[in-house]
Amino acid sequence: MGKKFVYLFSEGNGSMKELLGGKGANLAEMTNLGMPVPQGFTVTTEACVKYYEDGEKLSDELRDEIIQYVKALEKITEKSFGCPKNPLLVSVRSGARASMPGMMDTILNLGLNDEVAEGLAKLVGNERFAYDSYRRFIQMFSDVVMEIPKSNFEKLIDELKKEKGVNLDTELGAEDMKALAARFKDYYKKTKGTSFPTDPTEQLIEAVKAVFRSWNNPRAIVYRRMNDIPSSWGTAVNVQSMVYGNMGNTSGTGVAFTRDPSTGEKRLYGEFLMNAQGEDVVAGIRTPQPISALEQVMPEAYNSFVDISQKLEKHYRDMQDMEFTIENGKLYMLQTRNGKRTAAADLKIAVDLVEEGMLTTDEALLKVEPKQLDSLLHPQFDPASLKTANKIAKGLNASPGAAYGKVYFTAEDAKSAAARGEKVVLVRLETSPEDIEGMVAAEGILTVRGGMTSHAAVVARGMGRCCVAGCGDIAMHEEGKYCIVKDVRINEGDFISIDGSTGYVYLGAVKTVEASISGYFELFMKWADEKRVLKVRANADSPKDAKQAVRFGAEGIGLCRTEHMFFEADRIAAMREMIVSDTIEQRVKALDKLLPMQRGDFEGIFTEMNGLPVTIRLLDPPLHEFLPTADDEINALAAEMKIDVIKLREKIASLHEFNPMMGHRGCRLAVSFPEIARMQTRAIIEAALNVKAKGINVIPEIMIPLICDVNELKYVKSVIKQTADDVITSSSSSLEYKIGTMIEIPRAAITADEIAAEAEFFSFGTNDLTQMTFGFSRDDAGKFLEDYYDKKIFESDPFARLDRNGVGKLVKIAANAGKSTRPDIKLGICGEHGGDPSSVEFCHEIGLSYVSCSPFRVPIARLAAAQAAIKQR
Amino acid sequence: MGKKFVYLFSEGNGSMKELLGGKGANLAEMTNLGMPVPQGFTVTTEACVKYYEDGEKLSDELRDEIIQYVKALEKITEKSFGCPKNPLLVSVRSGARASMPGMMDTILNLGLNDEVAEGLAKLVGNERFAYDSYRRFIQMFSDVVMEIPKSNFEKLIDELKKEKGVNLDTELGAEDMKALAARFKDYYKKTKGTSFPTDPTEQLIEAVKAVFRSWNNPRAIVYRRMNDIPSSWGTAVNVQSMVYGNMGNTSGTGVAFTRDPSTGEKRLYGEFLMNAQGEDVVAGIRTPQPISALEQVMPEAYNSFVDISQKLEKHYRDMQDMEFTIENGKLYMLQTRNGKRTAAADLKIAVDLVEEGMLTTDEALLKVEPKQLDSLLHPQFDPASLKTANKIAKGLNASPGAAYGKVYFTAEDAKSAAARGEKVVLVRLETSPEDIEGMVAAEGILTVRGGMTSHAAVVARGMGRCCVAGCGDIAMHEEGKYCIVKDVRINEGDFISIDGSTGYVYLGAVKTVEASISGYFELFMKWADEKRVLKVRANADSPKDAKQAVRFGAEGIGLCRTEHMFFEADRIAAMREMIVSDTIEQRVKALDKLLPMQRGDFEGIFTEMNGLPVTIRLLDPPLHEFLPTADDEINALAAEMKIDVIKLREKIASLHEFNPMMGHRGCRLAVSFPEIARMQTRAIIEAALNVKAKGINVIPEIMIPLICDVNELKYVKSVIKQTADDVITSSSSSLEYKIGTMIEIPRAAITADEIAAEAEFFSFGTNDLTQMTFGFSRDDAGKFLEDYYDKKIFESDPFARLDRNGVGKLVKIAANAGKSTRPDIKLGICGEHGGDPSSVEFCHEIGLSYVSCSPFRVPIARLAAAQAAIKQR
Repeated sequence: MGKKFVYLFSEGNGSMKELLGGKGANLAEMTNLGMPVPQGFTVTTEACVKYYEDGEKLSDELRDEIIQYVKALEKITEKSFGCPKNPLLVSVRSGARASMPGMMDTILNLGLNDEVAEGLAKLVGNERFAYDSYRRFIQMFSDVVMEIPKSNFEKLIDELKKEKGVNLDTELGAEDMKALAARFKDYYKKTKGTSFPTDPTEQLIEAVKAVFRSWNNPRAIVYRRMNDIPSSWGTAVNVQSMVYGNMGNTSGTGVAFTRDPSTGEKRLYGEFLMNAQGEDVVAGIRTPQPISALEQVMPEAYNSFVDISQKLEKHYRDMQDMEFTIENGKLYMLQTRNGKRTAAADLKIAVDLVEEGMLTTDEALLKVEPKQLDSLLHPQFDPASLKTANKIAKGLNASPGAAYGKVYFTAEDAKSAAARGEKVVLVRLETSPEDIEGMVAAEGILTVRGGMTSHAAVVARGMGRCCVAGCGDIAMHEEGKYCIVKDVRINEGDFISIDGSTGYVYLGAVKTVEASISGYFELFMKWADEKRVLKVRANADSPKDAKQAVRFGAEGIGLCRTEHMFFEADRIAAMREMIVSDTIEQRVKALDKLLPMQRGDFEGIFTEMNGLPVTIRLLDPPLHEFLPTADDEINALAAEMKIDVIKLREKIASLHEFNPMMGHRGCRLAVSFPEIARMQTRAIIEAALNVKAKGINVIPEIMIPLICDVNELKYVKSVIKQTADDVITSSSSSLEYKIGTMIEIPRAAITADEIAAEAEFFSFGTNDLTQMTFGFSRDDAGKFLEDYYDKKIFESDPFARLDRNGVGKLVKIAANAGKSTRPDIKLGICGEHGGDPSSVEFCHEIGLSYVSCSPFRVPIARLAAAQAAIKQR
Repeated sequence: MGKKFVYLFSEGNGSMKELLGGKGANLAEMTNLGMPVPQGFTVTTEACVKYYEDGEKLSDELRDEIIQYVKALEKITEKSFGCPKNPLLVSVRSGARASMPGMMDTILNLGLNDEVAEGLAKLVGNERFAYDSYRRFIQMFSDVVMEIPKSNFEKLIDELKKEKGVNLDTELGAEDMKALAARFKDYYKKTKGTSFPTDPTEQLIEAVKAVFRSWNNPRAIVYRRMNDIPSSWGTAVNVQSMVYGNMGNTSGTGVAFTRDPSTGEKRLYGEFLMNAQGEDVVAGIRTPQPISALEQVMPEAYNSFVDISQKLEKHYRDMQDMEFTIENGKLYMLQTRNGKRTAAADLKIAVDLVEEGMLTTDEALLKVEPKQLDSLLHPQFDPASLKTANKIAKGLNASPGAAYGKVYFTAEDAKSAAARGEKVVLVRLETSPEDIEGMVAAEGILTVRGGMTSHAAVVARGMGRCCVAGCGDIAMHEEGKYCIVKDVRINEGDFISIDGSTGYVYLGAVKTVEASISGYFELFMKWADEKRVLKVRANADSPKDAKQAVRFGAEGIGLCRTEHMFFEADRIAAMREMIVSDTIEQRVKALDKLLPMQRGDFEGIFTEMNGLPVTIRLLDPPLHEFLPTADDEINALAAEMKIDVIKLREKIASLHEFNPMMGHRGCRLAVSFPEIARMQTRAIIEAALNVKAKGINVIPEIMIPLICDVNELKYVKSVIKQTADDVITSSSSSLEYKIGTMIEIPRAAITADEIAAEAEFFSFGTNDLTQMTFGFSRDDAGKFLEDYYDKKIFESDPFARLDRNGVGKLVKIAANAGKSTRPDIKLGICGEHGGDPSSVEFCHEIGLSYVSCSPFRVPIARLAAAQAAIKQR
């Protein structure tokens, strides 16, 4: 016999997520716990993998197995597929190992055809219900399985409403629904050339295939990439007997969390809609009632739900996100899963669960997704500015944080505006999975319809974007690219501000300020710091950044880029003078002007860091980056510098490079113009001496970028050492300093043993190392990497997540080689990977000393480092 | 006691080249053989290295040791430093491990001062000789040690000649020479502020230091880089008691080879000048007599020299290049070394020495420098064109081969013209080491003065440039940038042609044809082929190249670049149409036009290769390389293609890349546009089937460039395989083909085990691999690599000579990893390193299957592979 590809709910359990998907495993677990779950079966993720291996074909064996399980389900439910007298109807839902809300497709009411619909009407004594279910099924099946857009059917509904002279769907009666079902089937036949399938088994097989296919729809691919979910996992399919929340006023459906997903507060939190099917709540079409109201309406069902929800939370030892349906007063659980929540709620819940004795601190630390912390650190509105801000509307506080930006009304427009560098607020009637890229691009999201569990709210919280949902005051005119809020017209490109913590919407841009960090956050991070081994530093180029970094818990600066200092208005002139110099003397003269400014910067940074280590990288970018490119700017520069414009043009032309990324930059500049390194060294050492004189212990770490050969390092090191020692000697003081290098070129990694003999520390520059190891120019790769994701050649962006297999291997080789010649070498990483949890874990595993990342990512790195340490034990 | 830094000639021997330098070791060896060598001592190369380690200082210990050896030399020669009655005079010459002719400095007659000069005059009874020697010494010492240009002294000579109303130096008498010495000393004092040093010991110490310094003069650095000589070696200094060829008509000096260095013919070959010092011959100031003439003039000395030269050749088992001086009829040997020779001579001598029983074939193969073979393969004049060519002059046939080019009169002008892409003939009065870069840039060299052993002749032969020397028919007007040959005026930029094998000079550009390969060459290469393990293929993109490659012994094509085929006039239009396509359909339509052309190319290549393997690389460069950049060209293209010019500009702009080297190229194109790979595969397979139908066995090897991840390879391979199998199936014939990949990205090397699972062969693209491993853009690195050589960070160009330590390590890792998953994987290299002997040796050592290089370098690679195999045994 072959592998088992289908499991009854009663055959599985909660630990079988890999095989049954999250939803399937939890349905099995609830079944085992004796909870009221409509029974069904799960087609495994392995079946999906096989479907793709077989060239997107469903094997005869699998088909037979599914049919066999339909029979088993018929036995359990005592209903029968296609039997008008007692029909089995099922829902068909995807369910991957990781939750991918709304990313894949669902079909309800499967099993209906003309006879069954008629039978159902008689059985429940509700013809309108039966035919409404039928027409919905035709619509969903056509959309999901046959790719006929839902909206085409909506048009048919609109036509019928016009004929009938009514406005609302609810005004359509039983006969109308019956007519609609007929018109839908006609439309289907016209479009597809074949009749709508009437055999429930055929319907089911096609639906299963459609769910498998939906694993690779573009939305799902984007979502997986964003969430690091491998495409090899596949999705399971859950086939579950239907229960109906839309059978009248003793029926309903809802979703609820065991704790408040916004704040983490311990209280049942959710919404329900009477006389509705599940999708109605999530889709945000009608605005639902709070869950607490259910206590009045149906106390028995409510109490039963409260009881179950508590049991589930204890059982899973985590806040649960549950879906339920009440059919004629009887409660059914349709789903439970660990609930998505805001970062603030996540921390509070983790800390509370420890205090409630449900979790150990290790477990609590592992529960929190480090990337979430980011949103805690993001700005709130400046209270002063808020006082005078023009409040124009209020919606639901769906995802906390404050943002302002230019209004765009489509995901596409938002995406391209953000690509142009604009801050964007995406305003939509309601969002759908198609909008995902626009939501990523936006600072904040504002919707007209939908509740706290609508798509916009759930996704925004997951991404840490602020979101105001269900703001009914807005009248959308999407096609005209404007909206009207009360009597204010807001055009595309106008500024608005939204506060996802309060739900308020403001006209214009309201100033934001940084978040404050304390309470749960502080306690939680203290736990993390106790567990981790890896040090966390920040990349900071100014005293302001340095201050921010310390505030977020940085234990030093791992990368201080000196070039940013040169772009300031008062410095760029001297910098340009330096670059266009023809002789060393001219160059030194210009550098002498820059010296006091650099020294000042370093003094500020050393003072802020108050004794913590500071690694300063010498000038790195190619010099042409400092020169103007536009004609008028070049003319102006020539005039300002009193040099011949033709000569200046020649100079600029001579600095042009075909591949600047691999050009005259990094230590190559110091080799050609050692006087630059001399000036920078002098500024660093003088600043350190000055700050040391004030009683702060400074041990500057001078870092040489872009080394590819130990001889380069020897040369530049000798230039630095000579200057530093001269400055120290003539100060008649003393100062310790270190000289080290970036490892960011493959050859440096390969020859790291030789390089370590000359370097006191290595800092892995994984941005450049990724570029050169892959041969990808980061500025250009975006264009073709889309094709790589589409064709599943790559699953994650190697610039965001360290490529362990290639770049990581080089880092590991270099770390070991470095230790072989200098056992006490300090090893760090300062690429953007330093703030990526998966990459931090890797750095821990291979025994680096520290990671360095942007200040806002420092808490993420601290938690990721703690998790890595806990996992390794 | 410390290390011994000085050796008497009698203390050394011929095997001590590393310590004593080539010249010093050979002087010691000749001393041991009992040959008449003026005695002296050698300051070792280690002393030079120490001099640099000590910060360019000569230690007191070394100074003392040198003085001690002067005393020993005084004892041996029974002469005394600074003693007017019986003065010891010495020459001070550099002598590195490898011969660097004329690159470093020499001082003769050291030990003279006013008293000694007067004493010498009395001693030899020749006042003019004594003061001529004295003024020459002052001039040389001032130039070499104190950096006062020689020409400043020449001016003083000219002044005196004017005063005296004479034209030639020889017309100046003893008193004049005495006056000159005095004027020279005055000029020295005026320039330097101190008197000319009179203490012979001081003169000697300063001279030794100057020779050490000359190791790092710019000429020497360039020469070392060209010849792969490490700067760490240092030079030795030879201090030798003077003998005089300028003591009258029974004195003379000369240089000679034991065989003809142009042809290899076994006969004494050389020149001498009566009554002259050594430098006069080499400098080419007077035109000397052939060595055979010496037999009449001084038969005793001649016979003695013939005898010694035969002994030396037998002793060293190689053709010798000797310097001698006859002082008052007595022969002295000043130097012997293995003589430089043309490639043709090199081969003939190697083969002859084997036939004379002096060498084994292995020894003969190791004697020949593979790079030399290059010159054998270069063009000769087309006999037909030569008939009507306008012969205007004849000089010495100093270095064989034929060339035409535009005339330039300075090394600098020649260099910049060549950089502009012009073919250049460098025309000089005589060349000096300062001209070296101009000589490198030129196709050929023509000099007015100097003999077969003049600087121009020696260096040109070494480089394989053709050279006509001593062409006295030319009247130079360098300042006016023209010359007059008989009554023809030749301006800068005019074409001339020169034949280094005949010595003829022609006006205008005479057509050249390829060299013919046979005789010694064929026999020698047969020996090489018998020894080597490594296969040698060629890089060839057309049937013509393929034919050339086979002629030079290529055993297949290792790299056929398909993109060059697209640049031809009739194809570029279709190519551009393909690139600007918006849809797959448009693109396929354009590709369909290219298909028959590509197929034709491949048929031609397969036919030429007649069953030898052919590796074809799919399209590699970024598409924007095929589009025009100039405004008018873009407008023309838009008109021609009947598309909107604005749209075309947008398309071109969208293809712009910041770092095209790391951009959308190689297999990344095939991922985005699989239809291109499909068309190319179809062309290859159809061509192979067509050629196979004619009875030629073709197994095409399809190569995918720029792979960085196995998933890329899987994807593109599946595209190729599907197309290829479709074509083969529908042809109802059968065909074997292979699919492999370039390894040219660091990540591919690191993950080669995974990649080999999918690739039937690897070809290391060491050009790109060097770029990305170093992070050097080849197009840009030239600018800063000069600084790297100047500062001795790099000693050789990693693009010319494979960097074993970095790139080589990656190649080795990849080769081993590849074999680990596919033991029979075929491994080759197709970067330019494939024709570099040192790199070929490396490829042999790490067990690659073949190297592939340009057709002209195939013989070089064959010999280098043989040498590697012999050395490894």
